[in-house]
Amino acid sequence: MLEELKQAVLAANLALPKHELVTFTWGNVSGISRADSLVVIKPSGVPYEELTAEDMVVVDFDGNVIEGDLRPSSDTPTHLVLYKAFPEIGGIVHTHSPWATMWAQAAMPIPALGTTHADYFYGDIPCTRKLTQTEVEQAYELETGNVIVETFAELGLDPKAMPGILVANHAPFCWGKDPQDAVYHAVVLEIVAKMALNTVRLNENWAAIDQFLLDKHYYRKHGAHAYYGQTNRVSTH
Amino acid sequence: MLEELKQAVLAANLALPKHELVTFTWGNVSGISRADSLVVIKPSGVPYEELTAEDMVVVDFDGNVIEGDLRPSSDTPTHLVLYKAFPEIGGIVHTHSPWATMWAQAAMPIPALGTTHADYFYGDIPCTRKLTQTEVEQAYELETGNVIVETFAELGLDPKAMPGILVANHAPFCWGKDPQDAVYHAVVLEIVAKMALNTVRLNENWAAIDQFLLDKHYYRKHGAHAYYGQTNRVSTH
Amino acid sequence: MLEELKQAVLAANLALPKHELVTFTWGNVSGISRADSLVVIKPSGVPYEELTAEDMVVVDFDGNVIEGDLRPSSDTPTHLVLYKAFPEIGGIVHTHSPWATMWAQAAMPIPALGTTHADYFYGDIPCTRKLTQTEVEQAYELETGNVIVETFAELGLDPKAMPGILVANHAPFCWGKDPQDAVYHAVVLEIVAKMALNTVRLNENWAAIDQFLLDKHYYRKHGAHAYYGQTNRVSTH
Amino acid sequence: MLEELKQAVLAANLALPKHELVTFTWGNVSGISRADSLVVIKPSGVPYEELTAEDMVVVDFDGNVIEGDLRPSSDTPTHLVLYKAFPEIGGIVHTHSPWATMWAQAAMPIPALGTTHADYFYGDIPCTRKLTQTEVEQAYELETGNVIVETFAELGLDPKAMPGILVANHAPFCWGKDPQDAVYHAVVLEIVAKMALNTVRLNENWAAIDQFLLDKHYYRKHGAHAYYGQTNRVSTH
Repeated sequence: MLEELKQAVLAANLALPKHELVTFTWGNVSGISRADSLVVIKPSGVPYEELTAEDMVVVDFDGNVIEGDLRPSSDTPTHLVLYKAFPEIGGIVHTHSPWATMWAQAAMPIPALGTTHADYFYGDIPCTRKLTQTEVEQAYELETGNVIVETFAELGLDPKAMPGILVANHAPFCWGKDPQDAVYHAVVLEIVAKMALNTVRLNENWAAIDQFLLDKHYYRKHGAHAYYGQTNRVSTH
Repeated sequence: MLEELKQAVLAANLALPKHELVTFTWGNVSGISRADSLVVIKPSGVPYEELTAEDMVVVDFDGNVIEGDLRPSSDTPTHLVLYKAFPEIGGIVHTHSPWATMWAQAAMPIPALGTTHADYFYGDIPCTRKLTQTEVEQAYELETGNVIVETFAELGLDPKAMPGILVANHAPFCWGKDPQDAVYHAVVLEIVAKMALNTVRLNENWAAIDQFLLDKHYYRKHGAHAYYGQTNRVSTH
Repeated sequence: MLEELKQAVLAANLALPKHELVTFTWGNVSGISRADSLVVIKPSGVPYEELTAEDMVVVDFDGNVIEGDLRPSSDTPTHLVLYKAFPEIGGIVHTHSPWATMWAQAAMPIPALGTTHADYFYGDIPCTRKLTQTEVEQAYELETGNVIVETFAELGLDPKAMPGILVANHAPFCWGKDPQDAVYHAVVLEIVAKMALNTVRLNENWAAIDQFLLDKHYYRKHGAHAYYGQTNRVSTH
Repeated sequence: MLEELKQAVLAANLALPKHELVTFTWGNVSGISRADSLVVIKPSGVPYEELTAEDMVVVDFDGNVIEGDLRPSSDTPTHLVLYKAFPEIGGIVHTHSPWATMWAQAAMPIPALGTTHADYFYGDIPCTRKLTQTEVEQAYELETGNVIVETFAELGLDPKAMPGILVANHAPFCWGKDPQDAVYHAVVLEIVAKMALNTVRLNENWAAIDQFLLDKHYYRKHGAHAYYGQTNRVSTH
């Protein structure tokens, strides 16, 4: 069942330690089959070196386990909220990658300071408000998804053009058209977070990238007029 | 004698360079057999690449070498104080891991700023007071253990919920239910220390994580209501 | 056609991930045959692990593809401007290496603070002004080259003695007598950028290196009186 | 001639890239045969991966090449000054290791902030004054050695208890009883430099380690009363 997606989700999960985005069992990647309304996600707390495609857990939109012997990631409800709210995304990743997490702990958005950022994130990378006590205590992982959706609505952001967010006092979530694409964005986020943090400490009078340069770089790689990469893969990276 | 524990202590010691927590011969891990009232600890100053299970030194609670041809770690008296004061712990690790050591050198506790911290350390990670001249000169390693115990008593901390501490101007000590668990906490401490240090420099108006979010994350992984991981290993990680 | 140069350009491109200067497909190196007025450059958006010498694209000074099945790097117009303006250079590299990019994002030149810097960069490493909206929208990559040339003209810099520059809000470009030499300078730039950033944060009263020490180190490795290295390779490094 | 020393000097040089203290051909290690009044040193500008024991250059106290086909390191005069002034040392290493170099570029000594420092460096690690124009222009490498000796004399430092120094606007020199020991100290210096730099940025009210704790840690590893390590290697590490 969903073998191809399981392989893709497994591969994306294994890419997390390879890119030094996770320690131990931290982090998780999921992918969705929109046709089947089913999500494939990493099991909770299993070491990456032991993961197999068969370990991947299949859940429906209500979080019921449809296939798999292991518990799905404890963050599954967050993933499900995002898949429902953002119909254009096909993969989600959650990590505690250090530099992005520093911004989340500081409860600050990451300002768009350069073209590396602009190549993949169209504007400042937002940080959610803090969750309330009720939200945390009653349905924590669900509300984590909700506050992400709320933040995107309030800021009028497009999940395709802003493929990630920081959850205050927690860590980042990223997404993309498929699980591999989500991990790609998580890698970029970590690099951008590290560079931004040191840039603002180097120059306290730092300024955001000009809007026209942001546009130029983002649209050089995305959309109908993209001209980066080879014709048959313009839409990847 | 205690072959299984020696293997566990050896493996935990070898995990230190693998996780980049130590340089050269620095750092040491021990494990205890509560049934035998015996502690197995790394020998002093032997390179990790040469260590064998037979090199592990068995000492009793008074520090007498019961088995082994090598001198035990010079930090052995610190380990023994901790095993006596904290009956719930089964393994101890000492390193000079850089980011945790920076906080120790700054003589500052590590504030709980995010969920990565809350997942394993229930509150600010304390830093001891400085040792007095008398303490240093008369029984340095013993008093290092004593000041740790003193700090836990004064702050009313539970060694299970706070599996580590910084010794002022020195470096961290961590522990856990066994040697492997102690090393796990040492790895987390190093990551948390790095993230906290850069968070407080990024946002001088930083705030600690809300108590209810700290509770949520800590108890998601620990205690009777934990739901992270697989059923048959909920209590590990 | 230009097989030797293609091999050199390939090798220089593969050196970028090896020196941890690039992530994914970011970055590109080119080399020039002055005799043929042809430039060999990396194709756009192809993963380094898949690159072959045959993938290298040959373009003329007007950017026409003379040989090759793939699109040349989208930064090709920048390279061409530099080759035309700086006749003494034989290779160019563009990366988003993190520490150099932080300075570019801060829109600040890297001050010459020590001998590591002086060994290869004769003075502060400049940062361009920001591009105007017209420049970005009408001929972005071409104007990126132009603003580099403009900066060198205004500051009266010699491209041989200053083998690199930061483009504001973007990232560095470096060059050298051949593609390998360009990559060498990109590596040095990254190290120098990291050290300078932390030096100015450590000592707010930092001072630039004395001119006579800058002279000493630079000319110890460059020019007729160089005495570093072996006689038959004095002019390399 | 001096085959054993050549092997030791080669091994110590190869340890530099292994410990990530050098990039490219930067850095050099030498060793001395006091009985022969001869120094064995790395040739100038040869890549580490190509170095062989036969490449090592033998020079006398006046810098004359006694054996070897290659030019000795351009820093040879500095090494010779140190061997003459500090008769108790047997090996010298020079690197531009990044964190130590940041302190050198800031022209600041590294304060003794913790036990990691105290274990090997008995007090603040000094930084020389800047060289004068005359010194740089007339006999740069010789004067680099002289200003190190001058600094030790002015501060009343013992080269055995303080096995390294920073040269202002340049980089560190370290030494030890043999080439391997010198490299050991260079590794420690780099770690200590990184930790100190971040400690003083974390806590602007930082304080140096208490003298009695410095004494305790230093003499735990050095001298007649050392008790770290195994009996038959107490004097190493």
